[in-house]
Amino acid sequence: MIHGVIMAGGSGTRFWPQSRRNRPKQLLNIVGDKTMIRTTVERVLPIIPFERIMVVTALSHADEIRSELPELSDGMIVAEPQGKNTAPCIALAAYKLFKKDPDGVMAVLPADHLIGKTAELLEALAAGAAFVSRGDYLLTFGIVPHRPETGYGYIELGQSAESAGCPTVCRVKRFVEKPDRATAERYLAAGTYLWNSGMFIWRTAAILKAVRMHLPALDAVIKEILPALNTPDEPAALAEAYDKIEGVSVDYGIMEKASNVVCMPVDVEWNDVGTWTALEEVWSSDQGGNCTKGEVVLLGCKDCIVSSPHRLVTLIGLEDLVIVDTPDALMVCRKDCSQDVKKLHELLAERGYDHLL
Amino acid sequence: MIHGVIMAGGSGTRFWPQSRRNRPKQLLNIVGDKTMIRTTVERVLPIIPFERIMVVTALSHADEIRSELPELSDGMIVAEPQGKNTAPCIALAAYKLFKKDPDGVMAVLPADHLIGKTAELLEALAAGAAFVSRGDYLLTFGIVPHRPETGYGYIELGQSAESAGCPTVCRVKRFVEKPDRATAERYLAAGTYLWNSGMFIWRTAAILKAVRMHLPALDAVIKEILPALNTPDEPAALAEAYDKIEGVSVDYGIMEKASNVVCMPVDVEWNDVGTWTALEEVWSSDQGGNCTKGEVVLLGCKDCIVSSPHRLVTLIGLEDLVIVDTPDALMVCRKDCSQDVKKLHELLAERGYDHLL
Repeated sequence: MIHGVIMAGGSGTRFWPQSRRNRPKQLLNIVGDKTMIRTTVERVLPIIPFERIMVVTALSHADEIRSELPELSDGMIVAEPQGKNTAPCIALAAYKLFKKDPDGVMAVLPADHLIGKTAELLEALAAGAAFVSRGDYLLTFGIVPHRPETGYGYIELGQSAESAGCPTVCRVKRFVEKPDRATAERYLAAGTYLWNSGMFIWRTAAILKAVRMHLPALDAVIKEILPALNTPDEPAALAEAYDKIEGVSVDYGIMEKASNVVCMPVDVEWNDVGTWTALEEVWSSDQGGNCTKGEVVLLGCKDCIVSSPHRLVTLIGLEDLVIVDTPDALMVCRKDCSQDVKKLHELLAERGYDHLL
Repeated sequence: MIHGVIMAGGSGTRFWPQSRRNRPKQLLNIVGDKTMIRTTVERVLPIIPFERIMVVTALSHADEIRSELPELSDGMIVAEPQGKNTAPCIALAAYKLFKKDPDGVMAVLPADHLIGKTAELLEALAAGAAFVSRGDYLLTFGIVPHRPETGYGYIELGQSAESAGCPTVCRVKRFVEKPDRATAERYLAAGTYLWNSGMFIWRTAAILKAVRMHLPALDAVIKEILPALNTPDEPAALAEAYDKIEGVSVDYGIMEKASNVVCMPVDVEWNDVGTWTALEEVWSSDQGGNCTKGEVVLLGCKDCIVSSPHRLVTLIGLEDLVIVDTPDALMVCRKDCSQDVKKLHELLAERGYDHLL
């Protein structure tokens, strides 16, 4: 049986000023009229019903997630008392699911990514579930790249894994960090490099085996609180356990070390919406290449991204800017500085603008 | 006796979105905490008391001017039913003053210019008044240029006018339009070119003689309503008269044609605040050359002008932009497009944003 684990721990500083501490990216409706997390959940409903969907989020966002997804039962919204990156989140979810369904398969999906082709994703999830049910495989979904993107990590494919009905699954040769432009072009030309999507599927038992092997300290901490999981004692137990847990990503902590990692290439119009500039791909643009949302009037502008749901924004003679308007704060940013929104966020904290973060 | 005539007919489209139809530039506090018109009036009070100050404005702004300058008597706020440029405004004011004080001297001052050196201006006004009292001179104040500005018209000085006590007054050789950069540099180097400030002084009788000679049609229309001026019938009479009046500037209609035009050079830190970029000269700037007003946080920005009295505005990696925030509309403009704010204004009218203009 497939269970869905939605990772919704993001703090969303890179989407400031629209995202705020109490309203991170997964709770925004950046595309369409639903929040990203609601869209993520609804997307998989055809193969994973509400009762088998778990959301792991930060304690501070749990209430809002609950009201955003009232169909989820209380025990299925897991509130991490501290952000410790993806490995603890996944290990915790796996132990909780394992207690209920030791034979289950677990699909891990970030709450704040866009998928253009839902049918293709569901097909891939079903095929992936079938593949991993036959062993201890840790399957990561790799996105077929269509441009030499320097903002993503890549997965280099190795030999095709032996398999019936799913010939495209390959061994993973290595995970590689965000490349420079020339390297990214080489990757694209080679055809054996995929974008690392952060979407996974595996048997719950298989990932727990990997946690035990590669992150024994994490495993030990969670094992201590095992009896409390799925009970009213869980929040208190987590509070204590998370103090002891060291933050680490599942990529670094497990996937890059494990020998049973495989990758399934998918072509699903994936976008991790990592910065405001990602919206160029998903919002429609005018003849000048400007992507706008809200009331926007442009005069002689080119390739700008503007979000202004509340007021009139007017631009004259601009090129390659991102402009995000909210009722209490505005940001204007050169496109190639969009990574610096995080830096701005820190600067604002220093300057005493905590109430706007 | 010197009378002051403050010309406050500007519609202020170039300061949109801060200036609006019902709040043109002269009613904004762009520098300091008082409106420009209040500052203009208070500046001359040491030599021209309230009771001798007249403001000529548009009918639609008369009420606001009245509440901004309650010290002025009602008859001294003249509401033009239509904007017809400066010559009709000046002729009307002259006829009104002439009825009260046929021997008076009239100083004409725009309501929306900045003057850094008040004492120097007052000195010049007094010297100018003394000079023109001896004849039919039409005296224009020329600003000593400190840079090769291409945004102003220039006055080329001729021979020094004969005069006792005011040796700097010169005949005017010609008025010249806004020059290109090379020409402006030549003007600056020559030392005989001054900026055309739009500030004048003359005997009321002298300007009326010039109106009769150079703009006889205008003279005829105002003469028809002469009995109504300074009476309760004035507004109705103006409404009728202004329908017949042809709009023309005092520069084109009189100054460029008259033979008795002289110019007094002044060095008073004058700024006509013609576009947002003019504020660079009057607002203080940070190390990066950014001039900001309000709550503004900059990250890696250079030479930007930001006005945000109501909200936090944040900028990343920007250069040479003007950003003006108001509660219901925002404008971001490349500095060298600041003249296009007028075009934007027209575009907004076309697009149905009349309520924001």
